[in-house]
Amino acid sequence: MDPSPGGLGAVSGPARLAGPDEGLSAQELALATRNHGLPLEALRYDVTPPGLHYVLVHYDIPDTAPDTWRLTVGGRVLRPLDLDLPGLRARPAVTRRVTLECAGNGRALLGPRPVSQPWLVEAVGTAEWTGVPLAALLAEAGPAEDAVEAVFTGADHGVERGVEQDYRRSLPLATAADPAREVLVAYAMNGAPLPPQHGSPLRLVVPGWYGMAHVKWLREVTLTATPYTGFQQTAAYRLRQEPGDEGEPVTLIAPRALMAPPGFPDFMSRARVVRPGPVPLTGRAWSGHGPVVRVEVSEDGGAAWTDAELVRDPAHPWAWAAWRTTWTATPGLRHLAVRATDATGRVQPLAPPWNRGGFANNLVQRVEVLCAPAPTAPPRPPAA
Amino acid sequence: MDPSPGGLGAVSGPARLAGPDEGLSAQELALATRNHGLPLEALRYDVTPPGLHYVLVHYDIPDTAPDTWRLTVGGRVLRPLDLDLPGLRARPAVTRRVTLECAGNGRALLGPRPVSQPWLVEAVGTAEWTGVPLAALLAEAGPAEDAVEAVFTGADHGVERGVEQDYRRSLPLATAADPAREVLVAYAMNGAPLPPQHGSPLRLVVPGWYGMAHVKWLREVTLTATPYTGFQQTAAYRLRQEPGDEGEPVTLIAPRALMAPPGFPDFMSRARVVRPGPVPLTGRAWSGHGPVVRVEVSEDGGAAWTDAELVRDPAHPWAWAAWRTTWTATPGLRHLAVRATDATGRVQPLAPPWNRGGFANNLVQRVEVLCAPAPTAPPRPPAA
Repeated sequence: MDPSPGGLGAVSGPARLAGPDEGLSAQELALATRNHGLPLEALRYDVTPPGLHYVLVHYDIPDTAPDTWRLTVGGRVLRPLDLDLPGLRARPAVTRRVTLECAGNGRALLGPRPVSQPWLVEAVGTAEWTGVPLAALLAEAGPAEDAVEAVFTGADHGVERGVEQDYRRSLPLATAADPAREVLVAYAMNGAPLPPQHGSPLRLVVPGWYGMAHVKWLREVTLTATPYTGFQQTAAYRLRQEPGDEGEPVTLIAPRALMAPPGFPDFMSRARVVRPGPVPLTGRAWSGHGPVVRVEVSEDGGAAWTDAELVRDPAHPWAWAAWRTTWTATPGLRHLAVRATDATGRVQPLAPPWNRGGFANNLVQRVEVLCAPAPTAPPRPPAA
Repeated sequence: MDPSPGGLGAVSGPARLAGPDEGLSAQELALATRNHGLPLEALRYDVTPPGLHYVLVHYDIPDTAPDTWRLTVGGRVLRPLDLDLPGLRARPAVTRRVTLECAGNGRALLGPRPVSQPWLVEAVGTAEWTGVPLAALLAEAGPAEDAVEAVFTGADHGVERGVEQDYRRSLPLATAADPAREVLVAYAMNGAPLPPQHGSPLRLVVPGWYGMAHVKWLREVTLTATPYTGFQQTAAYRLRQEPGDEGEPVTLIAPRALMAPPGFPDFMSRARVVRPGPVPLTGRAWSGHGPVVRVEVSEDGGAAWTDAELVRDPAHPWAWAAWRTTWTATPGLRHLAVRATDATGRVQPLAPPWNRGGFANNLVQRVEVLCAPAPTAPPRPPAA
């Protein structure tokens, strides 16, 4: 069966895996040049400044008009809502610091490599999101007795594997309406209106879930009496070994620790250079399944591990924790690694967990560091 | 000769060209995931919102402290300056709208491909920069009679092809001190303090020049009696056919027009889909050599060209111009192209101008568009 009505198959192919020696394709590069990760030195900021937070946009950033924007809450509800931005801003607001990670983070480290947005480890960021609790809006609308899911529709429109669509995802109603999950309809990021690429003027924020659930440019919430089976729910974002598998849905963020690479980089290889002696190592760690309870660092590529100091801020349970330790560097090429364990006992793996979509690969981060003495002559200043 | 004192060659190799069938390497991908281009739909904004403007950082974004930041103006001057931010902000300020483009834009479209940051066409952005005219600071410091260049030093530190360095570039004094060139020491972007990735707290802005001249995290201006011959001036950013060539320096931005791709995209191929009938085509065009005087659009991949309407804003001579036209789309796979001509007669080429560094490749942009009728059934909304 041709899945592409209107001949969309000419520009919209099926999912595929890269060949054994296939370098990154022009199509993957086109995605990598528009979307971007967190430069890892930006792990230094508790809250990621705009422009450094990762961005993944499926289609185009839509040309939205905040002044005329409407959010509807309908479907299986008793009192449908039709809200504008002033109406949302007039409701009680909360601000939550949330670490957000793309479900495809780590994909480009897999072999064979699923061909899609080619993230290494940097598709993450932490922001302060301000908005109205979704639970409050749903209580106002009054879910019908038979409602089981909330379906969220964004304004971004495109084609994917031959299927033309608005971006659309669902949550179980039990999650969407749970005050403890703190799902937000957010209109501000770090105290300012949402930037275009983060969903202006409204987006969903689902603490603890991978990014695909945080629907941007949100215009419609629809409660349904049956589970939603659209493209982004059942074709994409499933953990599959074979194309025909039903697959498990991608949901909560797997634990991950990242290191702010120490020293200074080589431009091209991004390998690091440090001087011999004590080197502070710092970074962040997070999990959507529960608090991170342990971060370990390896100085020998993952053979031996020692605990780092972990600093969690109880005021921000949905945000990454900080970690730090000191490494005594000795001359030579070194291979650092870091891994997180969360309160549910989940530990980052040393071998990547493979699936056809390249989702949730929380393989430990490895950082190549050359420890070299300082040059005997310092870098030459310009001759005056 | 080993160019890498301290053994830096272990992580810092020489420049190279990709092999004939070599896909993008892991190192190029690591650059592409940290740096990012302008998503082309963001050409719709006269001034690019933060986070959508292109970013290219050679080393790490440094951890700067605006409160203690100093800018020195020294070397061959009569009255050396040592300025803090309040001191700079107390001086007469100007705001200029400037289009900034990376010298490596277009590199990944070259064959053979120089291995470096792999831009396609999107390494551009336009911002409103506020700061102190460099000409005023230089007049205050008083250039010595023998001064010929101004050397600018940033706070970003790293290794490149075995050479450890702070990022450093020079301008001829005649350019740096020319009030008409309007070189700025900028402390604000779009009305807000500079974001970390754009040079917080200070950067140079050199209207009309490629990005390598706009030194970020600026901490030192040094006037010299001889031309500066450091790495970024004489090893990098030269137009060379062979490794040993002296090469021409990269300076002013070559003309380029870009189209905001019409219709909507396929997620993976980024090809566009439009409906049959009139389709508005819009975009931007710029040149560092002079005003853009003509933009032409081709509907047949570059065989025939027709003029687009060009809208220049005389209030913003350093910023891109807007252009627009209407295309009557008919069903099938179409290949659009656009090209700019500037007042000096420079026209974008149909074949890429190749050099070993991959600089200034202003090859015309080509956009693949599938014109397809609307599906007979609209996209299915969620069943309530």
